[in-house]
Amino acid sequence: MSIDTATIRNGVNTEQMYGTLDLIKDQPALAQFQFRVSNRWIDGAHNRSTIQGFYGAGAEDTSRAEAYTLDAGEPTVLLGEDTGPNPVEFLLHSLAACLTTSIVYVAAARNVRLTAVESVLTGDLDARGAFGIDPEPRNGFEHIDVAFRVTGDAPEEKLREVVERARRRSAVYDIVTNGVPVAMHVATA
Amino acid sequence: MSIDTATIRNGVNTEQMYGTLDLIKDQPALAQFQFRVSNRWIDGAHNRSTIQGFYGAGAEDTSRAEAYTLDAGEPTVLLGEDTGPNPVEFLLHSLAACLTTSIVYVAAARNVRLTAVESVLTGDLDARGAFGIDPEPRNGFEHIDVAFRVTGDAPEEKLREVVERARRRSAVYDIVTNGVPVAMHVATA
Repeated sequence: MSIDTATIRNGVNTEQMYGTLDLIKDQPALAQFQFRVSNRWIDGAHNRSTIQGFYGAGAEDTSRAEAYTLDAGEPTVLLGEDTGPNPVEFLLHSLAACLTTSIVYVAAARNVRLTAVESVLTGDLDARGAFGIDPEPRNGFEHIDVAFRVTGDAPEEKLREVVERARRRSAVYDIVTNGVPVAMHVATA
Repeated sequence: MSIDTATIRNGVNTEQMYGTLDLIKDQPALAQFQFRVSNRWIDGAHNRSTIQGFYGAGAEDTSRAEAYTLDAGEPTVLLGEDTGPNPVEFLLHSLAACLTTSIVYVAAARNVRLTAVESVLTGDLDARGAFGIDPEPRNGFEHIDVAFRVTGDAPEEKLREVVERARRRSAVYDIVTNGVPVAMHVATA
């Protein structure tokens, strides 16, 4: 929950938001973004990603003074040493974060002041797929369940509209429900 | 790169690995896993996930003494205050981490000692989709490019086989390329 002013709503600068939308409408090329992650294996199930630069708004972004690092791992039962959340947990976090920010941005654009946005996500999978034991179960989640609690200064119907609009605009929801083509290149030297 | 012994290869305990595979073959119910993430909005594009327990191997896991916390954000140009990687960057990390661990596990199972696994992932998107400016571009990545460098004590052909097998077994690669059904529930009080 955040302090609101005439232009800051839900912690989002709505003047900047409207300005950004107008700019992109005028110059669609500014909407082209490329995000990047570099990853390096450390040991066993432990690997680390470095995240800093990206291309967007017509230029290479240099606003991040330092890189983010993310450590992944697996728990003991999945042959790791618990050096970080595992890859599918990061995927659930990615989906939770994207839906939440979409809800906050849509609410800001529609004059809805939010007081809380909380979610619990669960993903079920049958590890026989990823372990290659049985061709029948798929490797990834069979399904994902997302439970949101959203409160704010608006009638229930309006809050539900905000969530529904956010779902239809979320980048990660689109990726996870519809899939994306992935090209893989391999060098061995 | 890790120290290898008779049973530890690429940092993976292969005896434990073969034992786990045999156990799951005998008792397929042990392969059922449920992973969970709880997320809470903090302010603007800043939200935080908490990750600890999961169900797997026939029981609720209690091996993690503390929860992991992950902070998400957006850079200034996307109306945030750069409080963490953004949701689509977390998704690229999830994919990088899963493919990398799959490569390491497959190599361990096939007696291939790896010396390096590095990757760079890029994802391109047109923000007009997620901003709801134009119905034409999709919200999420249009495509993802993954460039791996994998080295180890094996001929090039064998290393390429390991990567290809890992791609076909990766949980997140499956999710990201094929999509997963997502059910959303909303409470407003």
